[in-house]
Amino acid sequence: MSISNMEKVAVLTEALPYMQEFFGKTIVIKYGGNAMINAELKQKVVQDIIFMKYAGMKPVVVHGGGPEITAALKQMGKQSSFVGGLRVTDAETMEVAEMVLAGKINTEIVNLLNRSGVKAVGLNGKDANLTLAKKHLAQVVENSQLKEVDIGFVGDVERINPEIINMLLDNDYIPVIAPTGVDAVGNSYNINADYVAGEIAAALGAEKLLLLTDVEGLYRDFKNRAGFVSTLTFAEATTMIAKGLLDGGMIPKIESCVRALAGGAAKAHIIDGRLPHSLLLEVFTTEGIGTEVVKKGSETL
Amino acid sequence: MSISNMEKVAVLTEALPYMQEFFGKTIVIKYGGNAMINAELKQKVVQDIIFMKYAGMKPVVVHGGGPEITAALKQMGKQSSFVGGLRVTDAETMEVAEMVLAGKINTEIVNLLNRSGVKAVGLNGKDANLTLAKKHLAQVVENSQLKEVDIGFVGDVERINPEIINMLLDNDYIPVIAPTGVDAVGNSYNINADYVAGEIAAALGAEKLLLLTDVEGLYRDFKNRAGFVSTLTFAEATTMIAKGLLDGGMIPKIESCVRALAGGAAKAHIIDGRLPHSLLLEVFTTEGIGTEVVKKGSETL
Amino acid sequence: MSISNMEKVAVLTEALPYMQEFFGKTIVIKYGGNAMINAELKQKVVQDIIFMKYAGMKPVVVHGGGPEITAALKQMGKQSSFVGGLRVTDAETMEVAEMVLAGKINTEIVNLLNRSGVKAVGLNGKDANLTLAKKHLAQVVENSQLKEVDIGFVGDVERINPEIINMLLDNDYIPVIAPTGVDAVGNSYNINADYVAGEIAAALGAEKLLLLTDVEGLYRDFKNRAGFVSTLTFAEATTMIAKGLLDGGMIPKIESCVRALAGGAAKAHIIDGRLPHSLLLEVFTTEGIGTEVVKKGSETL
Amino acid sequence: MSISNMEKVAVLTEALPYMQEFFGKTIVIKYGGNAMINAELKQKVVQDIIFMKYAGMKPVVVHGGGPEITAALKQMGKQSSFVGGLRVTDAETMEVAEMVLAGKINTEIVNLLNRSGVKAVGLNGKDANLTLAKKHLAQVVENSQLKEVDIGFVGDVERINPEIINMLLDNDYIPVIAPTGVDAVGNSYNINADYVAGEIAAALGAEKLLLLTDVEGLYRDFKNRAGFVSTLTFAEATTMIAKGLLDGGMIPKIESCVRALAGGAAKAHIIDGRLPHSLLLEVFTTEGIGTEVVKKGSETL
Amino acid sequence: MSISNMEKVAVLTEALPYMQEFFGKTIVIKYGGNAMINAELKQKVVQDIIFMKYAGMKPVVVHGGGPEITAALKQMGKQSSFVGGLRVTDAETMEVAEMVLAGKINTEIVNLLNRSGVKAVGLNGKDANLTLAKKHLAQVVENSQLKEVDIGFVGDVERINPEIINMLLDNDYIPVIAPTGVDAVGNSYNINADYVAGEIAAALGAEKLLLLTDVEGLYRDFKNRAGFVSTLTFAEATTMIAKGLLDGGMIPKIESCVRALAGGAAKAHIIDGRLPHSLLLEVFTTEGIGTEVVKKGSETL
Amino acid sequence: MSISNMEKVAVLTEALPYMQEFFGKTIVIKYGGNAMINAELKQKVVQDIIFMKYAGMKPVVVHGGGPEITAALKQMGKQSSFVGGLRVTDAETMEVAEMVLAGKINTEIVNLLNRSGVKAVGLNGKDANLTLAKKHLAQVVENSQLKEVDIGFVGDVERINPEIINMLLDNDYIPVIAPTGVDAVGNSYNINADYVAGEIAAALGAEKLLLLTDVEGLYRDFKNRAGFVSTLTFAEATTMIAKGLLDGGMIPKIESCVRALAGGAAKAHIIDGRLPHSLLLEVFTTEGIGTEVVKKGSETL
Repeated sequence: MSISNMEKVAVLTEALPYMQEFFGKTIVIKYGGNAMINAELKQKVVQDIIFMKYAGMKPVVVHGGGPEITAALKQMGKQSSFVGGLRVTDAETMEVAEMVLAGKINTEIVNLLNRSGVKAVGLNGKDANLTLAKKHLAQVVENSQLKEVDIGFVGDVERINPEIINMLLDNDYIPVIAPTGVDAVGNSYNINADYVAGEIAAALGAEKLLLLTDVEGLYRDFKNRAGFVSTLTFAEATTMIAKGLLDGGMIPKIESCVRALAGGAAKAHIIDGRLPHSLLLEVFTTEGIGTEVVKKGSETL
Repeated sequence: MSISNMEKVAVLTEALPYMQEFFGKTIVIKYGGNAMINAELKQKVVQDIIFMKYAGMKPVVVHGGGPEITAALKQMGKQSSFVGGLRVTDAETMEVAEMVLAGKINTEIVNLLNRSGVKAVGLNGKDANLTLAKKHLAQVVENSQLKEVDIGFVGDVERINPEIINMLLDNDYIPVIAPTGVDAVGNSYNINADYVAGEIAAALGAEKLLLLTDVEGLYRDFKNRAGFVSTLTFAEATTMIAKGLLDGGMIPKIESCVRALAGGAAKAHIIDGRLPHSLLLEVFTTEGIGTEVVKKGSETL
Repeated sequence: MSISNMEKVAVLTEALPYMQEFFGKTIVIKYGGNAMINAELKQKVVQDIIFMKYAGMKPVVVHGGGPEITAALKQMGKQSSFVGGLRVTDAETMEVAEMVLAGKINTEIVNLLNRSGVKAVGLNGKDANLTLAKKHLAQVVENSQLKEVDIGFVGDVERINPEIINMLLDNDYIPVIAPTGVDAVGNSYNINADYVAGEIAAALGAEKLLLLTDVEGLYRDFKNRAGFVSTLTFAEATTMIAKGLLDGGMIPKIESCVRALAGGAAKAHIIDGRLPHSLLLEVFTTEGIGTEVVKKGSETL
Repeated sequence: MSISNMEKVAVLTEALPYMQEFFGKTIVIKYGGNAMINAELKQKVVQDIIFMKYAGMKPVVVHGGGPEITAALKQMGKQSSFVGGLRVTDAETMEVAEMVLAGKINTEIVNLLNRSGVKAVGLNGKDANLTLAKKHLAQVVENSQLKEVDIGFVGDVERINPEIINMLLDNDYIPVIAPTGVDAVGNSYNINADYVAGEIAAALGAEKLLLLTDVEGLYRDFKNRAGFVSTLTFAEATTMIAKGLLDGGMIPKIESCVRALAGGAAKAHIIDGRLPHSLLLEVFTTEGIGTEVVKKGSETL
Repeated sequence: MSISNMEKVAVLTEALPYMQEFFGKTIVIKYGGNAMINAELKQKVVQDIIFMKYAGMKPVVVHGGGPEITAALKQMGKQSSFVGGLRVTDAETMEVAEMVLAGKINTEIVNLLNRSGVKAVGLNGKDANLTLAKKHLAQVVENSQLKEVDIGFVGDVERINPEIINMLLDNDYIPVIAPTGVDAVGNSYNINADYVAGEIAAALGAEKLLLLTDVEGLYRDFKNRAGFVSTLTFAEATTMIAKGLLDGGMIPKIESCVRALAGGAAKAHIIDGRLPHSLLLEVFTTEGIGTEVVKKGSETL
Repeated sequence: MSISNMEKVAVLTEALPYMQEFFGKTIVIKYGGNAMINAELKQKVVQDIIFMKYAGMKPVVVHGGGPEITAALKQMGKQSSFVGGLRVTDAETMEVAEMVLAGKINTEIVNLLNRSGVKAVGLNGKDANLTLAKKHLAQVVENSQLKEVDIGFVGDVERINPEIINMLLDNDYIPVIAPTGVDAVGNSYNINADYVAGEIAAALGAEKLLLLTDVEGLYRDFKNRAGFVSTLTFAEATTMIAKGLLDGGMIPKIESCVRALAGGAAKAHIIDGRLPHSLLLEVFTTEGIGTEVVKKGSETL
């Protein structure tokens, strides 16, 4: 890069208003998709999180892990079936999912962060009863009728107990959270990480929820990539969910944003994690990347 | 049980001197062997740990997991070779070991404790850089010569960073620790849980280290089960190690005890985990079960 | 006792649910009657209180002392007269009562506790203005007419200032309280210890009030010891008081329980202090001993 | 008093240097003699202590009570014998002494202070094991030979545990301390209040020990009231004790001062408690009243 | 002075009720007039403030400085014009005013206090944004019409940010405050110190506002010094302001008192600062000097 | 600037190592010269200080003010004479100097910082006795003889009392300090701001002292601007001072650096304040600007 030192310090001072705005604020980051697979992107996400930490924010990381679970099951010769996009999860599958999420992906992210000079601590839904879960009721259409199907240990968030996260944040640790849950009798559940991130943002009253995805954001006409939506109001988002206007992959993202805002978070952003440093781009530049969901707004769909 | 209520309260008051002695003290428990496999024993160990907690102690649990790692590797069709009793651990094996230790056994113990009304939190060597490790130098005799062999990601403890444990203890959590470690460049290592427990007891200046094993304790003549040793002094223990007088399985146990005492722990105990409630028996009754290693003592071998 | 160590630890784990239930809770104990006279019972009460302390509870002891006051007055050649069961208390009598309560019984209980390894501190109503009192209005029937009689320095509780108790509890001391009070101009009063205990339980929002008595509990027909009442609701208790259905000796006990519950305590128990370890029996076993007064209940009289 | 308001505020500002000097400092006051008997003097001592408290000092009161013990024993028809000026104290006598000291005099002083708007708390040697005692070895000369005589429960201070005093001072209470002690097996002892005050001043590292007495101070020739000593150095005081140059009544006073200074107190004063407001006179005016014992000094005897 | 030491300590104990009443309370002192010019008075004001501090109060000093500003402007050859008693303040005049207030008078008072053994810290309206100001709207009558005139950087208090004062008080410092303010864009303003003191008393919920003036207090008929008013109720004061019954010089004094009381202060006093020790006279004697404004009162005008 | 957002975030992450290195560290900035006169530079210095604050550092600002003092004196028609480069400072001159430093320059810097969203508080040497001073002994050569000359209220630092600075830093304020001092009897002194900054860096154990100057740094041959010195060791610096090898203007700079390092600061830098953002350039880029003085170093002169 041929940027002079003078230009560099000018860039730093340009970042100052953002540092002032977000100082001491909690930022929940849903980490997943390409940004978790591509080694270079991975390193940049880690840098972004550490930059946030040293700029005085309180980042909280929630990660997914679907592809790695699939790979591990395959290696063990276990076939997965899906219902409505959700993996049918028997006890053995859940055990593998938990091992991969809490014992592999989580430890790897913690490791990457710690190698770069912060103190990260891994959590999963069982630690201090962080994520209480209940069985997800999957529904399929069979003979034109809506029918409930038991797909095993796939869960919804029942309640977040944020004390352990707050204790870690107060002591300058970065919590890294695997999206598992546990019910009252001790069963483990695999939960969509988007939902876990949304609920944690709500429980913490976070300033921002940042969802790293593999898309540019929301389009009104997703197939033709037409009508890109930069800002969506809470009301518009709930309407789109209710009316079924969202593309399948977008549903958990937008629902996560809605949940975060309903619970007290200030803003939620769907960000294209395929861009290097997309987190810093979102937080520290004027360039609104991706789609933001805000409590109130003037833009209409 | 036909014990009357009057007898019961008499038993409680008999426990009082032990409660007074250990109030506020840190007790490190190495949890492994049969006590981790047998469902009934498992439940009793959990009760014992919770009893300690409510009687004012600060229990810290370190667990092993060798048999479960073997099972998982087998399921994945991966063969293990051993050198001097240690599993040759390539990167893939280490990944499986970490998943099993941090993602399966650890979460299960945390879960059992939390279901019984305490707040447990799982940790592994990477969390807040808890366990810094270095490669273990394995030695084999080849052609009558001692030779170093690289057995991969098998580690020794380089340093324990106990801050995260202390923070959890100060906030009334029970830390549950998987015996993995990490080196300066981020490699993961599998470490014998006995050693991790000993080093953690040392780093915390624990009152007691309790090693749950599948033997009654130390015999001078192990094969014939003759000459049971109730108390071993620090000096005797180090002599036995130096002179090679210990049976193979006993080496890490006694070395763990020695390390704990050298680092500041007050006492270390090798306990028969096959007995139900062996932890409470050791802590709350006069019956000295197993073998204790103490800093000074009058008994000679 | 021929109880094996295995049976002993089983007894300990049986006590665990009670330890969990009462951990950190304040328990007010009215200490009096035989349990304060019989040397063996005395020692067992001390053990019970210390056990509670080490099991994480916060015991507060309020003691009586009528018989010892009578003995001291007799020794000084001073005759007592009684009106409605209450000692007519002139200034000189009050001085003796205060010396016996604050200078003899209180110091003895403090001493017994401290000898057993806790830190007890004696208080009386004057310390930090703990117990503000007003003159008790005694009533007698004379010529079929209710008439007020001045019986001197016999007091009712006007207000408890619990700050000094809370400071002691927060610093791990056991407060031992003599049942004297003081009015705004500095006069001392002798107050029934049952009432002081009830008011203190109320002021502290205690979990339990335990009244050690010399009876088994409440009978509907006290003379014939028929119709033993295990549980009494608050409503039933207040009705019995209002309708005059209580035996004389029971009135202050039941009124004390009612006052404690009205002020915020969770439960109150009338316990037979003649049983050894009656406090532990009540708190740590399923055996409901004596009579409990609860805020709501299904049993009717 | 015909002092104008202008003169009054001038007097206040004259007191300012003393307020500055002693702000936040601990002052131990031995309260006894006439100042504890004469009602008017009593009230003035209370005012002085409260003034000190509101001027930012930390007063600690230690009181005696010999005459009242004598009176109580007499009332009970119990004769006292004395050996070397010390009362032979059997168990019954000790019980009376403890009742009078802890249950009568102590509660009365606490009461007087509390009525005037401070928060005083009474303590005796048993509270939180404040004053650990051992039997005093009395010596008499018999047939020109020094012989030890057992005079019962008369004690010397073995150790002061000042934690309870410090906790009270830190929370703005005024501790009022009865001069009893307790040994390791729970026996009570009556201890000369001068010694208790000296030891407490030492244990607290007090700024000043103020001994209220019924004399003007120390005379070199006591009988003829000649050679009044305003200032005595530590060295001179120890010499006088060693050489037996002190009048009987002065021995415990001077020894108390020596003990306070040896243990870390800054200054000790023997004050004539028969003067109204003698405490304030000593602390807040230039008029050196009585005899002070200082660590170093230029005056020689 | 021929006051004996005995009389002196009697005076001290007479002050005790006032020390008890005002212990820990915040007292805002407006320092100005003769008491700031006359060297002897100055020294006595300093003594009074330090006495208050050592008697447990929390004094806060707000000073004026009009005459010194005039002198400095004159020295610089700058003429001042006045509109309705207020100095027309251009930018250059404001710069001089700020230098004199914050750089000369303030540092001198801080210095005087610190030399006498307390820790004073100077503040002005810019420090931590203590005094937010807005331009004062001056009005003049021109051709029988009320007209607004721009008199430059003369300000009114918009808001007090008392955090910095509270931090200083909590750490035992005495804040000394110059009466400047700052608006949202950084302009400096000169504000009448009476108003600043009143607003600070309100913002701190002070116990007392003491305004040192060069008059005896309020007279109903000021010119003839007739009808001295000792006590004025809040209602009376507001009425007098509304009806224009106040002499010009009295307006800011009474308005300051009204503002202090409206904002939560308990009492406000207009004191004759020409009397030596007038602050102590007011606070520590029964002699009501000057005029007090109270929330409620029985006296009518 | 045509730097893309992607480049900008890359610049931010490049700053991360510096943010990590200096997080929580104290940085003392001597602010003076052109950077205090030029409006644009002024604004950039303010931005730099605020950036440091939000990046987790603890900036402390010490400012000078010679030119403004000269201007004010001139305006008042007061002529200055100089001895050895130091202004002869009579009482009147000192009064003007103090007004300008504490009342004008200091309030202006505080104002600039506060307008940009931090909380700055101005201090001068009198506040809480921050800077204790003694008279500077000026020496002149007269008739080839070294002679002491009294140049009035020009001071040297006697001692810094840093408590007030630490309290402000702990509460997230930025202290802004005028270079005045006060002696034991209350005389004010004008002190070279370089020395005050060096002493404050020493007293705080600062991480860095940054001296903003109007030169590029130190040259071995200053006149010809030859032999620029990037790094100077402590030993070299002291040697240059001792041997008189420094150019006049450089003496106080280098002496200030030496004093800071001797007192515990880690590094000191002489920076060219004429460059925009010179503070950030120094702290956040690899470009070593100016001359640094370090405790040890390999470069030789």
